[in-house]
Amino acid sequence: DPERIAVVPGDGIGNEVVPAAREVLEAVGPDFEFVEADAGDEVKAETGEALPDETRELAANADATLFGAAGETAADVILPLRSAVDSFANVRPVRAYPGTDALHPDTDLVFVRENTEGVYAGHEDEIAPGVTTLTRVVTESASEEIARYGFEYAAERGERVTIAHKANVMRTTDGLFLETAESVADEFDVEYDTALMDALAMHLVMRPEEYDVVVCPNLAGDVLSDLAAGLVGGLGLLPSANVGDERALFEPVHGTAPDIAGEGVANPSATMLSAAMLLEYLGYDDAGERVRSAVKATLESGPHTPDLGGDATTRDVTDAVLTKL
Amino acid sequence: DPERIAVVPGDGIGNEVVPAAREVLEAVGPDFEFVEADAGDEVKAETGEALPDETRELAANADATLFGAAGETAADVILPLRSAVDSFANVRPVRAYPGTDALHPDTDLVFVRENTEGVYAGHEDEIAPGVTTLTRVVTESASEEIARYGFEYAAERGERVTIAHKANVMRTTDGLFLETAESVADEFDVEYDTALMDALAMHLVMRPEEYDVVVCPNLAGDVLSDLAAGLVGGLGLLPSANVGDERALFEPVHGTAPDIAGEGVANPSATMLSAAMLLEYLGYDDAGERVRSAVKATLESGPHTPDLGGDATTRDVTDAVLTKL
Ligand SMILES: CC(C)[C@H](C(=O)O)[C@@H](O)C(=O)O
Ligand SMILES: CC(C)[C@H](C(=O)O)[C@@H](O)C(=O)O
Repeated sequence: DPERIAVVPGDGIGNEVVPAAREVLEAVGPDFEFVEADAGDEVKAETGEALPDETRELAANADATLFGAAGETAADVILPLRSAVDSFANVRPVRAYPGTDALHPDTDLVFVRENTEGVYAGHEDEIAPGVTTLTRVVTESASEEIARYGFEYAAERGERVTIAHKANVMRTTDGLFLETAESVADEFDVEYDTALMDALAMHLVMRPEEYDVVVCPNLAGDVLSDLAAGLVGGLGLLPSANVGDERALFEPVHGTAPDIAGEGVANPSATMLSAAMLLEYLGYDDAGERVRSAVKATLESGPHTPDLGGDATTRDVTDAVLTKL
Repeated sequence: DPERIAVVPGDGIGNEVVPAAREVLEAVGPDFEFVEADAGDEVKAETGEALPDETRELAANADATLFGAAGETAADVILPLRSAVDSFANVRPVRAYPGTDALHPDTDLVFVRENTEGVYAGHEDEIAPGVTTLTRVVTESASEEIARYGFEYAAERGERVTIAHKANVMRTTDGLFLETAESVADEFDVEYDTALMDALAMHLVMRPEEYDVVVCPNLAGDVLSDLAAGLVGGLGLLPSANVGDERALFEPVHGTAPDIAGEGVANPSATMLSAAMLLEYLGYDDAGERVRSAVKATLESGPHTPDLGGDATTRDVTDAVLTKL
């Protein structure tokens, strides 16, 4: 049976960049079965639900999902989709792709973000009038899984690991995260260090070239990866993967870009780079590398969409990438 | 009666920069009573306590405290000291002072960080083997107090406010913070916007000049202010205030600098700028401004300590500042 790929464009430019990336997936060959489904602000306006049950079911059963972006409903869509695919790791490579106006062009690192707990697993309450609480959860099992993923990733590439935490304040919870990650580190022949997330924020701004793989709790990964995106000119070209054992979800880090949605000029590169990660996740390493190289070559040579200072359309860029595959 | 100032040098270069800043305070005139006390790694090694009771008591009863830095015991010293002075606001001006090697020389903003709750008020537990929790607390009263402080600060200076939050995930707790801050905003004729802390991390890296006063929950302020320090060349020159209604504590943002401690070449500027904030807190605005101008003039003209590429000593810089007062 062919592998099944759920395709969820979402809102805004999701409807332009996801079809473009799907064309690229179709062109590189594996015999996938694509199934489309809705999510986001528009479907919520029509049906009352930002994430319809059939979309969640589809993602939960597909081999991989390619997601675009959602508007106001982003959290209502992406958080349940991440758990529908049982993804424990949010993987965010941040590098200065050709054509970006990068503050630090030598940035090339990857965030391996815990994707299930921390404040995101937070049970919240108003325990008295004007007094609210959130229960932040950190488990040894999730900490071990994310650390192992990060160290394996670094070991395969001959890279270093940095373990981010705030264990001087969150002594029990981030203490467990840190201690667990350090015992995983002992199993690997990989160089690593640990860093308080505040100090790391400063160091990333000043010397991002010193970092390779950064293993983080959930919210730390959210904030530090966006910070790093700022170092390479913004979210525009960055791909990401939400990785589980059986299935996974791939999405550009950017949003719906309402200012240009519908004009056919959205840059499809981040979604195509996410599609390259999808191919590699499913074991098609050569196809993944072909897509990544074609996208990079197009970023170098043009044509360029308006976000990179050109006047090409999504169609022009897609055609250029297809030619270079 | 003269106002009483607790002086707590702490560890490392705290013992060099705090006496230097005290000389400056003595020179500008208000008739203060200075009382010294210990805190940090060294006193812990001697007595078993990083923050001796008499130091806490002193800070709790002084009109203001000038603190240097603590080493490994930083959290054990600074968190109880912040609560000893009942400080609700941690105020961190971040600007590119003359002589810094700034990535963004036009950075000039101030973080107004909630200083009592969030994950810092966290009660932690191991609720089952390998399963830990932290209770994050957000109250309407603390949110209102910090927002009002931030808006008053901005109103006095004719500046804008940005309210940082992560209410799309922490809907109840940061939802309360955001909603409360927005209703405080309605009382002021101050321009403001709100920003998700992850998106704000990216924007601060790319366009810090667009921000004036950033009102943040506790951990967000910790991370975002260190990020911003990275934009102006690091923590080296940044002062801070922990402000309460009756008393307050002032500290440089930098640490103990063990690599240069004891050599007499530490840069006292950040502590002197903190002393300027102390003077203003106690109502000595002119004296505060004199100190700030003298420090800035010395940063411009030299002499410079080694961190700024010079070979001057702490003594040389202190003499230069004293002359310029
Ligand atoms: C939309 C939001 C819930 C999400 C997150 O916080 O994880 C986003 O910021 C991201 O990083 O993908
Ligand atoms: C030492 C630590 C507890 C402290 C904090 O997290 O507040 C420090 O990072 C700071 O920002 O002053």
